Amino acid sequence: MDDFVFRNPTKIIFGRGAEAQVGAEAKAFASKVLIHYGGGSVKKSGLFDRVVASLKSAGVACVELGGVAPNPRLALVHEGIALCRKEKVGLVLALGGGSAIDSSKAIAMGVPYAGEVWDFFAGKAELKEALPVATILTIPAAGSEASTASVITNEEGMLKRGFNSELIYPRFSILNPELAFTLPKEQAANGVADIMSHLMERYFTNSRPVELTDRLIEATLRTVIDCAPRVLAKSDDYDAWAELMWSGTIAHNNLLNAGRVGDWGSHDLEHELSAAYDIAHGAGLAVVFPAWMKFAYKHDLARFAQIASRVWGVDNAFMDLERAALTGIERLEGFWQYLGLKVRLSGLGIGAERFGEMADKLSSGGTRQVGNFVKVGKAEALAIYALAL
Amino acid sequence: MDDFVFRNPTKIIFGRGAEAQVGAEAKAFASKVLIHYGGGSVKKSGLFDRVVASLKSAGVACVELGGVAPNPRLALVHEGIALCRKEKVGLVLALGGGSAIDSSKAIAMGVPYAGEVWDFFAGKAELKEALPVATILTIPAAGSEASTASVITNEEGMLKRGFNSELIYPRFSILNPELAFTLPKEQAANGVADIMSHLMERYFTNSRPVELTDRLIEATLRTVIDCAPRVLAKSDDYDAWAELMWSGTIAHNNLLNAGRVGDWGSHDLEHELSAAYDIAHGAGLAVVFPAWMKFAYKHDLARFAQIASRVWGVDNAFMDLERAALTGIERLEGFWQYLGLKVRLSGLGIGAERFGEMADKLSSGGTRQVGNFVKVGKAEALAIYALAL
Repeated sequence: MDDFVFRNPTKIIFGRGAEAQVGAEAKAFASKVLIHYGGGSVKKSGLFDRVVASLKSAGVACVELGGVAPNPRLALVHEGIALCRKEKVGLVLALGGGSAIDSSKAIAMGVPYAGEVWDFFAGKAELKEALPVATILTIPAAGSEASTASVITNEEGMLKRGFNSELIYPRFSILNPELAFTLPKEQAANGVADIMSHLMERYFTNSRPVELTDRLIEATLRTVIDCAPRVLAKSDDYDAWAELMWSGTIAHNNLLNAGRVGDWGSHDLEHELSAAYDIAHGAGLAVVFPAWMKFAYKHDLARFAQIASRVWGVDNAFMDLERAALTGIERLEGFWQYLGLKVRLSGLGIGAERFGEMADKLSSGGTRQVGNFVKVGKAEALAIYALAL
Repeated sequence: MDDFVFRNPTKIIFGRGAEAQVGAEAKAFASKVLIHYGGGSVKKSGLFDRVVASLKSAGVACVELGGVAPNPRLALVHEGIALCRKEKVGLVLALGGGSAIDSSKAIAMGVPYAGEVWDFFAGKAELKEALPVATILTIPAAGSEASTASVITNEEGMLKRGFNSELIYPRFSILNPELAFTLPKEQAANGVADIMSHLMERYFTNSRPVELTDRLIEATLRTVIDCAPRVLAKSDDYDAWAELMWSGTIAHNNLLNAGRVGDWGSHDLEHELSAAYDIAHGAGLAVVFPAWMKFAYKHDLARFAQIASRVWGVDNAFMDLERAALTGIERLEGFWQYLGLKVRLSGLGIGAERFGEMADKLSSGGTRQVGNFVKVGKAEALAIYALAL
């Protein structure tokens, strides 16, 4: 087990109707909040009004900024920063999924910073302070509701970059599985691919031994595999959504990488894909991750056989590690296809045309490598994208 | 899944030599700390001196109070409170296992409270504030290093009572598996029984569905079952101690009961046993838990069969739930015996003489029930103690 430091102070308020508690919770941090959200679904569903009512009854004022898109953009972050400064907002409250939350975190980072907020994502500045952030989660997927991460896309060059800091852990996150009932099937499936990818990025490690965290990750994967088809079959299955929503948080709250270094190459490979084609992150991962696995499995056959055996029930795995490893990858692809996900670029209508450009950006022109389990530079990225065709 | 609120802000600093960081961490909370510990082992091992040196180099002064016994006593807590007040201590730093940590938490509760600190344990006062607490763990067992709990024994009537509050979460806990290398085998085995009991108390629940947390608990149990014999066989097996130490924290940091109500009857039954005979908590649990299981298994055969199958590898469990449940209990007993633990009161030299007194205290003279999975009053307590003979 690697040495580690772990702390996750996010307060989770989980259950039916939990959004009614937002006013009381927000009041501890601010007298005015920015409600930051995506499209109109939070208004149509009545969630927005319930949140405003709860804030009002707690004596908390609010301003709003909607319009967050998947792969949230820097321009809207700038708008949010200006609004928070003008309105003297003390807390940024995200209503939605990973995009709304990541955009809220970036706004919170930018408000007290005199320079350009992109500096943090470009690795040119160190974050010293941030406004507090809170979330009401509507999409189990990104895990941003209890994570240190924010991923923002800079329209200038369509650069998609992630940033991590303990300062952007949400102060509280409200998780009500009912809020996911109205999620379109496709978005739900994308979320499942995102959650499973967060788990697998952590799983594929060169750190060892990592026995407890291996088992915890496998436990979470098996739960997701059991519950995902149930929410797709019955969109108001509270029990299954509850397991899935909590799994999504656990998958990304840093507990499951305590003492181990995850890979994260697939996330970088996907970021280039979704930056180039503006597809949903989860949809991109469903294509990239199996391709990465086919590229990487020989690096540690035993680890791939272990996940195949323990998570996918591949039998007789010890007798032929390679066959087990490959069967595990097939089962993952089969499961994702069963959920309606595409596991090949061709299924997304994407060809090889921009592979060179994507591999170039990923590797900063061939000078940078991503990934920890296996190193991925320009040549490796091209090989993996080709495996995804 | 039950509605829940979860927050655990304890900062974990894990790894070889991690105690060297105590000065830098403590400085954020206080300019003077109380170092609170048990016997002389922390001095003999050099740990105490290393801690003082780290504090000194960070400019943090310290006073010390040793002498914490297993089943920590109220009298020493009083002494610690007086010392902290006199010396204007700002942080209570526990060096040791659950007893030193629980005693430190009680001291921290008492310092700012004008009344008698036992009021909190007796349920007669509400905790409003406490000094910050931090820990350097030397015994993987109690999980108190990241828990809301403290258990103290009042010599007057030998009442052993637990208290829970978010205000006594340690601010930071330093976990260095090397510090467990010198632990006597018996204490190590007792710790394993304590960790496994914390996991099983949470496992036996009437809440449902609890799919993810079931699997996470099973994952942690399997890790403990794999690692415990290894540390007993080779006391300096860092890897196995690391898994065991982190499992002990995870077992009791409230993550694994998010969305479920654990039982905790066995803990109450054991508290009476160790209050009466002053045995180690883990040794008592190794006797009480199997007896409780034999008493309780018919309440939910499926759950007992599930743990037997998934944790103990009992085969063909679906075809005969009762046989599987009983086989699971036998395997637990066998495993604990293999670790050198006694699983019967007779093995501890304890007979039925004081059952009436213990059951009376447990049930407050027949007026109180403990446990959530099954209710245990006076008659049930007598039956369970009899099963433990």
